Amino acid sequence: MVNQNLLPFEFQIYEAQHYEEVCYAITNMITRGAGSIGAAAAFGMAQAFIQAPHSQFHTFVSQARQKINSTRPTARDLFAATERVFNAGMKSVQHAIEEAFLIHSEYISAGEKIALHGNKLIHNGYRIETHCNAGWLGLVDWGSALAPIYKASHFEKNIFVWVDETRPRGQGARLTAWELQQENIPFKIIPDNAGAYLMSRNMVDIIFVGADRIARNGDVANKIGTLEKAIAAKAYGVPFYVCAPSSTFDLNCPNGRSIPIEERSQEEVLYQTGRDEFGCMQKILVCSPKSEAFNPAFDVTPSQYITGIITEKGIIRPCEEDIVKTLPLR
Amino acid sequence: MVNQNLLPFEFQIYEAQHYEEVCYAITNMITRGAGSIGAAAAFGMAQAFIQAPHSQFHTFVSQARQKINSTRPTARDLFAATERVFNAGMKSVQHAIEEAFLIHSEYISAGEKIALHGNKLIHNGYRIETHCNAGWLGLVDWGSALAPIYKASHFEKNIFVWVDETRPRGQGARLTAWELQQENIPFKIIPDNAGAYLMSRNMVDIIFVGADRIARNGDVANKIGTLEKAIAAKAYGVPFYVCAPSSTFDLNCPNGRSIPIEERSQEEVLYQTGRDEFGCMQKILVCSPKSEAFNPAFDVTPSQYITGIITEKGIIRPCEEDIVKTLPLR
Repeated sequence: MVNQNLLPFEFQIYEAQHYEEVCYAITNMITRGAGSIGAAAAFGMAQAFIQAPHSQFHTFVSQARQKINSTRPTARDLFAATERVFNAGMKSVQHAIEEAFLIHSEYISAGEKIALHGNKLIHNGYRIETHCNAGWLGLVDWGSALAPIYKASHFEKNIFVWVDETRPRGQGARLTAWELQQENIPFKIIPDNAGAYLMSRNMVDIIFVGADRIARNGDVANKIGTLEKAIAAKAYGVPFYVCAPSSTFDLNCPNGRSIPIEERSQEEVLYQTGRDEFGCMQKILVCSPKSEAFNPAFDVTPSQYITGIITEKGIIRPCEEDIVKTLPLR
Repeated sequence: MVNQNLLPFEFQIYEAQHYEEVCYAITNMITRGAGSIGAAAAFGMAQAFIQAPHSQFHTFVSQARQKINSTRPTARDLFAATERVFNAGMKSVQHAIEEAFLIHSEYISAGEKIALHGNKLIHNGYRIETHCNAGWLGLVDWGSALAPIYKASHFEKNIFVWVDETRPRGQGARLTAWELQQENIPFKIIPDNAGAYLMSRNMVDIIFVGADRIARNGDVANKIGTLEKAIAAKAYGVPFYVCAPSSTFDLNCPNGRSIPIEERSQEEVLYQTGRDEFGCMQKILVCSPKSEAFNPAFDVTPSQYITGIITEKGIIRPCEEDIVKTLPLR
């Protein structure tokens, strides 16, 4: 997997030989983004089946599943992936491996379908805002929120992207900006504070974001700050779309209140890392010394603020009726 | 004046001997915050009267006024202060100096009155959110948005403050956090993205912000990101108060659309400064190299999102009727 902690300053592949290394990669955000976490977890679960000693086979794979599931709490894809590979592995190790590859290819296929559906919403000249990173890096190959933007660009539509910086970890400024540069799509980074201002001045035509978990009623957990953009978008009549494959929906979750929200280390807020003028990575304190910080990694956007959810099965309304009709329980 | 660019890592006084040095201090944000800019501009205008050569007196002071006025475009206090001192200086240099000292003392007195009025809104146990820095540093001695918080703390109310980091320059994380530490008031820094999430979980009881300019109809220009907080506060029923002395009101400005919004250098978004582990100041790139950024320094919050405006003359509704009644044109 691409080591996303080193981007945008260094491109390096992280190889996980064992499922424990996959756990390390997810916990430490070497890989991140709901879909990429799902794919990594699927391969990690398959690796556990390969690793498992004959004598304690079932104990080993059950513990492995628990360990993978405990890496991060919010993204639905993680749990969906380990469940599928675990159940397949009950038949044979080969089935587990095949299921992991299947999940991986489903993300690629879902991303391109999301791209095609979402592209229809993008008109020539559109200025699109996005939060965090839900591109190649966040969801294997195409991405979710960035997929429609890539498709529109491939179709030679004239588009421009406002990239939310996405503090505290800066996934917008670091990862989305880097991806858009590779795709030659014009963009500017904005402080997270500037979103509503741009909307108030008619400088945003549409907003696309990804999702970490979508509840049965259409409430969406996504990167912290998504909720502020959604509320501002509603206030200014800017269409606000969530892009996600069906693996991100959690039909057992009745509403957003039931989604666990990860709280991450305060260090992510108090310090910033980046490259100094000599090209060296530095970690600096960006606040008054001895301050404390609160760092919730996600928020929940109630369905009332969401215009539509773009899935591989089409664009659906964020309500139980449409979600259950489109995504029947397996 | 306190050199606010060095805080919170170093406390140093910047001495401006001539009005040109005052201009430098305002442009480069050595001093910042509507009231502190107003007081600095007042003294700078008075200095120009002292500096002016007898032969070209009027040309010199007129040009000085223009130069001071062109340091920053948004804060009303700047223009109000130079106008008052300029008009006083038409009588005598001594009048100009006295007017500058009067403006300075009016800020102190206004701050304490805002503190007393705002304190009545703060109940024991309140969790208060604030954006940017509108404390001692931003408005001479007491501050505006932080003044009620300091008064409540002096009255031994049990309070807690959520400090918005306030990207890109981090006035919350650097200056408000530093001030609250000096006052022994408990607080935590949050990423700007987290405000709406805290409100959605009933973790914010009231919000206080400052203002850079208030239009005749109650629209408020303030630090970028204020608008997002105000919209979210309305959505979740959190009282949202703007704190400002009457010098911040611009009755010639019919509404927020007429307030010029300063666009600052993209470097403020692309780079971050802070202290490394050895105690040295470092400037680091925090985004994908060769990215561009857009950096509007302020936004305008329409009056519909504001619960009330706390002035030295009391708490008023954000509407033309109350504003004109309370603050007659000079």
